[in-house]
Amino acid sequence: MEGMTPLPAQTIEEALELMQDKKLTASDLASACLGNIKRLNPKLNAFITVQDSFARSVASTMIPASTPRATYADVLRGIPIAVKDLFDTAGIRTTAGSKFFADHIPDEDAFVVEKLNSAGAFIIGKTNTHEIALGVTGNNPHFGTARNPRDLTRIPGGSSSGSAIAVATGMALGALGTDTGGSIRIPASLCGVVGFKPTYGRVSLRGVFPLSWNLDHVGPLTRSVKDAALLLQAISSYDAFDPASIKMLNGDYLGHLTDDMAGRRIAFAVGDYFASADADVLQAARDAANVFEGMGCVVEEIGMDWLRDAASANKTMTQADGAAAHRDRLKEHPEWFGEDVRRRLQEGAKTTSTEYALARRTQAEMKKRFELFFEAHDLLILPTTPIPAPTIEGHDAVEQAARLTRFTAPFNLTGLPALSLPCGFTSSGLPLGLQIVSRAWGDAKVLNAGYAFEQATEWGEKSRSMV
Amino acid sequence: MEGMTPLPAQTIEEALELMQDKKLTASDLASACLGNIKRLNPKLNAFITVQDSFARSVASTMIPASTPRATYADVLRGIPIAVKDLFDTAGIRTTAGSKFFADHIPDEDAFVVEKLNSAGAFIIGKTNTHEIALGVTGNNPHFGTARNPRDLTRIPGGSSSGSAIAVATGMALGALGTDTGGSIRIPASLCGVVGFKPTYGRVSLRGVFPLSWNLDHVGPLTRSVKDAALLLQAISSYDAFDPASIKMLNGDYLGHLTDDMAGRRIAFAVGDYFASADADVLQAARDAANVFEGMGCVVEEIGMDWLRDAASANKTMTQADGAAAHRDRLKEHPEWFGEDVRRRLQEGAKTTSTEYALARRTQAEMKKRFELFFEAHDLLILPTTPIPAPTIEGHDAVEQAARLTRFTAPFNLTGLPALSLPCGFTSSGLPLGLQIVSRAWGDAKVLNAGYAFEQATEWGEKSRSMV
Repeated sequence: MEGMTPLPAQTIEEALELMQDKKLTASDLASACLGNIKRLNPKLNAFITVQDSFARSVASTMIPASTPRATYADVLRGIPIAVKDLFDTAGIRTTAGSKFFADHIPDEDAFVVEKLNSAGAFIIGKTNTHEIALGVTGNNPHFGTARNPRDLTRIPGGSSSGSAIAVATGMALGALGTDTGGSIRIPASLCGVVGFKPTYGRVSLRGVFPLSWNLDHVGPLTRSVKDAALLLQAISSYDAFDPASIKMLNGDYLGHLTDDMAGRRIAFAVGDYFASADADVLQAARDAANVFEGMGCVVEEIGMDWLRDAASANKTMTQADGAAAHRDRLKEHPEWFGEDVRRRLQEGAKTTSTEYALARRTQAEMKKRFELFFEAHDLLILPTTPIPAPTIEGHDAVEQAARLTRFTAPFNLTGLPALSLPCGFTSSGLPLGLQIVSRAWGDAKVLNAGYAFEQATEWGEKSRSMV
Repeated sequence: MEGMTPLPAQTIEEALELMQDKKLTASDLASACLGNIKRLNPKLNAFITVQDSFARSVASTMIPASTPRATYADVLRGIPIAVKDLFDTAGIRTTAGSKFFADHIPDEDAFVVEKLNSAGAFIIGKTNTHEIALGVTGNNPHFGTARNPRDLTRIPGGSSSGSAIAVATGMALGALGTDTGGSIRIPASLCGVVGFKPTYGRVSLRGVFPLSWNLDHVGPLTRSVKDAALLLQAISSYDAFDPASIKMLNGDYLGHLTDDMAGRRIAFAVGDYFASADADVLQAARDAANVFEGMGCVVEEIGMDWLRDAASANKTMTQADGAAAHRDRLKEHPEWFGEDVRRRLQEGAKTTSTEYALARRTQAEMKKRFELFFEAHDLLILPTTPIPAPTIEGHDAVEQAARLTRFTAPFNLTGLPALSLPCGFTSSGLPLGLQIVSRAWGDAKVLNAGYAFEQATEWGEKSRSMV
């Protein structure tokens, strides 16, 4: 877009290589990103807080790792990363996009922010979010309306709105978001970047402001699938002090990326539940299925109207869990919440435990159903969102949330790894996202399929160059 | 007790050996058990349905396995087993102890009943339960008051009341129960038998009438720890169609029983939360700790007042989940429920989703807390119940439930394997139970510790002979 300067490196991967070859410094990168922030942020509202002088000074002291690939310990040395303003950052304001926390300065870093730091990345700023992460438009009444860089009259998607915008427009090379019903994947899809929600329990939630203790996920937004694997490598680690963290062997997400997909059994979701999606969206997903078939995958159409019940249970739980997490604030100052968020929290507070228990039962059934499903299939593909980015004006935020999370929320309920990556554009140039899902702990499998798709098509590169 | 005839074998283990040596037939065993049922059941109300002629005819056709230990496939060949009337049995009335199901005849066996049958056991009858398993007294308004065989004026404990009575009095050699807050372990403790609640997900719940979809457990009640291991061996198996079933390697519970406990790190729970327990109960638990110390274990006192929060969350969830499972019946015919059960279901129905979500958060936190706890300890020991069997008269059933589940409910919330086994008697001859707990999937470890304790003390044998 106007005012955006292309970065000296298109991806984290490229930046690491250039720095290793002394053709680029962390300071160059920081300057380029900060320049884009300065020029574009007033229009886009991607950042709530920019770490301008901090980022410059940290970057200036950074000596590139001589062999960045030899160890994963400093896999992100010198890379500017943007972090959603839901992640605690020691000494840096962390608002959760909420009036209640407008002046809140945490004492400690979130576990994953610590991980980023120790991997050598530096935090360039804190990104705008739909208020308390409960919504998908990014229209934040307290910190400004986030806008889609492809068309300023349209939403960027949310709730990790600023993280997606920052990555799309070269304000950062990668970002962290959170995802409770699609909040990483939806803005990734609508802004034309890569977003990955790992398996529940893979990445620690400690120090991340909760919306739902059982549906929240942390994950990366990046400019390529390999970059998503790089970020996941840095942040995924067992955390003994996070109730959500599950003790599993940490995967090697980088070591196994390959474009050999021969023989993979891919389910392509079809049925009435998908009929309401735009024709462009359905066509792009079908084209993607054909790409996989071309790689030697066995693609099978599977009726999946039952995803409707999973999405519905996810909504019930998100609102009820959100009302529980915000119970004191909702009681003391309901007027401090934006209208749409207040409405959803109040609906959540009215949820009965019977409704909750039934949603929880659905959750257990859906997990089991997918367990069986992924004995017959290696991967599932479906669109990320049923529509491309809608306009900011003329829509109710609560209805938008229900609509845009239809295809993403089932994988929060079930905790399955789900990637969104660019798979085409509408005739008017709006990006479309493909979702790739697999069994629990199959994160590497999902990333690999995304990598193969990216290698086989032009969509990743087009997305990076078209902003 | 008066009218009880000692069985020709004290345990399943002994019966299998005698049958293998042709010194006993399945018919002898069936006759002995049915004789005890005939004489004692009118007083004790242990059975709702007795499979008299069925059991006799099945037993008469049974040829003992020549090498019962060579394979676990027919590990229970010829053994009469009683099953709580919450388990579906094809063609046999299954009431759940409820007026709503007084004439309900299922078409299919519960998964674990199938497992018992294929292991060669035969179902001798369906045992009495606290109505819909929601309570601990066994005072069932529809199918009669279950009574403690040690003292007919006292409760047997519940909700698996009849299963514990049947095993204690030689009406069956083993039994199945269910446990949502202590319903296997409490009656085992109050009747002086062994009761085991395996790790959540280890044993299928399919075809078992639900009280709480997330806290219910199926497990054995037996006359020895080894018998509990035998029953678990027969019933524990992954069930692809039960949402609660978790795919884990099935343990070998029999192969590793040993009395060598040297060096095991045992936590002995202490603190204010235990101060309300009877002196007899606390002394018996302390004596048990000394027994383990005598075996070379390292016993450490650990303050565990935080179990209070776990028990409280378990109660909130049990009532709310129960109200969800029985929502239609509660609406249409509340008067068909007994007074105490109706009161608890109605309280459950009034639970808000905020209260539920907070209890669920406590559940996640407690699971993590125990995960860390069991990195420092191999086992935890504590009393099963704070008191021995109280009298039937003079107590409120709802208050009894809160009181008697204090020490058992935390392990439903967290899904940890927990065994209750005899560890002494009060001066008036009422049995006392010791609880042994370990980390998730440490079922074999718990059974082994129980086996070692049983070998080192006289309590198991005394319990079997004192009825």
